[in-house]
Amino acid sequence: MREHGGVGYRRRLTPAEYVDGVLSGDRYKLARAITLVESTGAADADLALEVIEACLPHTGGARRIGVTGVPGAGKSTFLETLGLYLARECGESLAVLSIDPSSPVTGGSILGDKTRMERLAMDERAFIRPSPSSGQLGGVARRTRETMLLCEAAGYRNVFVETVGVGQSEVAVRGMVDTFLLLALAGAGDELQGIKRGITEITDIIAVHKADGDGLRAAQRAKAELQLAMHLFPKGEDGWPARVLTCSSHSGDGIREVWDTVLEHQETLRASGFFATRRQRQSTDWLHEAIRGALEEQFFSDEAVQRELPGLEAGVRAGTASATRAARRLLALYNRKE
Amino acid sequence: MREHGGVGYRRRLTPAEYVDGVLSGDRYKLARAITLVESTGAADADLALEVIEACLPHTGGARRIGVTGVPGAGKSTFLETLGLYLARECGESLAVLSIDPSSPVTGGSILGDKTRMERLAMDERAFIRPSPSSGQLGGVARRTRETMLLCEAAGYRNVFVETVGVGQSEVAVRGMVDTFLLLALAGAGDELQGIKRGITEITDIIAVHKADGDGLRAAQRAKAELQLAMHLFPKGEDGWPARVLTCSSHSGDGIREVWDTVLEHQETLRASGFFATRRQRQSTDWLHEAIRGALEEQFFSDEAVQRELPGLEAGVRAGTASATRAARRLLALYNRKE
Repeated sequence: MREHGGVGYRRRLTPAEYVDGVLSGDRYKLARAITLVESTGAADADLALEVIEACLPHTGGARRIGVTGVPGAGKSTFLETLGLYLARECGESLAVLSIDPSSPVTGGSILGDKTRMERLAMDERAFIRPSPSSGQLGGVARRTRETMLLCEAAGYRNVFVETVGVGQSEVAVRGMVDTFLLLALAGAGDELQGIKRGITEITDIIAVHKADGDGLRAAQRAKAELQLAMHLFPKGEDGWPARVLTCSSHSGDGIREVWDTVLEHQETLRASGFFATRRQRQSTDWLHEAIRGALEEQFFSDEAVQRELPGLEAGVRAGTASATRAARRLLALYNRKE
Repeated sequence: MREHGGVGYRRRLTPAEYVDGVLSGDRYKLARAITLVESTGAADADLALEVIEACLPHTGGARRIGVTGVPGAGKSTFLETLGLYLARECGESLAVLSIDPSSPVTGGSILGDKTRMERLAMDERAFIRPSPSSGQLGGVARRTRETMLLCEAAGYRNVFVETVGVGQSEVAVRGMVDTFLLLALAGAGDELQGIKRGITEITDIIAVHKADGDGLRAAQRAKAELQLAMHLFPKGEDGWPARVLTCSSHSGDGIREVWDTVLEHQETLRASGFFATRRQRQSTDWLHEAIRGALEEQFFSDEAVQRELPGLEAGVRAGTASATRAARRLLALYNRKE
């Protein structure tokens, strides 16, 4: 609610002001539009949809890149280093959106994240925005996806979506980006830190981070082991075999190579036509997720359902009631009420 | 529909006849009860639920084992060899349910599958049943789960759920079994056949199949490579590190070891308490899947929704309409109709 309340302090913008502001790349108006998208207020929701739909024709032009890794993998440092390389050496604009349970809701100002990517935040080519991850993952994903669209409409050529490697957030992010990058760390033993079983399925590029100083050898060994492991698995349907690299945000080594690999991945997918195919599929999936989310929200907020669910759930868990039967009872209650 | 029509030819059984038949281990009545569960007829659905709920108190006693692998991995041969070992040498009863797009709907007779596991089908301790995989995965999963419960109520000590390694069927099966086994094949190169990226995440045991004759060396190499790869990934929440073995249904080598590993896995999980935890969670997940399925079925069968969906979907796919907006429009239409 805070970001909603936050909006209240300021003069309410008209839809046109939001849209013009975003399309002209006005950072302040973009930030407010994002706050609008993040708002939990019903009135804001209608306005947000209007703004987003007006911006839609101007979206789709950015590279969409997901970055994950467990806490401690150094995602923020990596993104800052990569971002500064992009902004200063490649003259590229970029937006960094982070889905991070630890990131505060800042009412739309980017100050809330300054502590994390201070140098990058100073660069006018970069826009950094933490996504409030409060609420259900579905809601977070929806907001992040719409925030990404606003950033694209504002003209940012690269949009990074950072997520901490917990729960299902990677899958949600994988569902909205073109290239998915995993930041891994060499562990003490031969086990790798920052790798979740199954993550390889959705990863295009694995960068073993902190490959510097005393950590260099371990990182290189981890890279070799990962390459071996990746080798065992067939390519994904996009025909791209997961690539493994090492890099260091401290020394900057390998950062350029990581970026070149991102570009190579996107070019490869564009050449094969899978790039467009996936984006279309992602849009359709997004619609179905939105429908599913809305249906379930409506269902589980139903009074009769809330009253009966716990008992039925207990019966099913105890193995005394059939889930199919329990579901039917709940549906019957639900439908009767409408 | 065929299995439903099939039922029509025979005298309809009363709920009590179904239940008594199943509980007494009457194979014919069990087969008919399964046909009832598989039926798409509304009348049958009520009867099926009644039968299942009456059987529920007698379920849960079996080992639930999922088996997957790409076509050609030799799942049926493996299951027949393992099944014969269980039935003849261990005196164990077992049911084999297969979710296989290629398996015909046989109106409940087990003859339809005879061609695949002839010898095992002859053994009275074994019950083989292909699950018609027509319709949505959700429906298939529901039928398979309920068929599994009927087999448990009929006294089968081991229930194998076989699925071909395509799409999301493994995830569905993983959600209804205690132990999940992957049959892999050594490939020509170092790439493995029958392994999907990420499948290792949900796999407890990997058996490299066809480890005999000329294939022995390749299988052993594949095993070593897989063990190395598995080593890189942390254990799952059950604390069990995926185990890799080789076996041959042709020579019988390793079959016993595979089974011993299944038993070890189940004992380990029982000892840690995770066995019960997972089964309870699976039941709750089942309820929520059932709810989700019912909600979506109701939604997508709505006339207004069916009329508007294609257009809205096209708009979202083309990037001209926001998924959130499209979902809202459909929901509004849907709710108005009720």
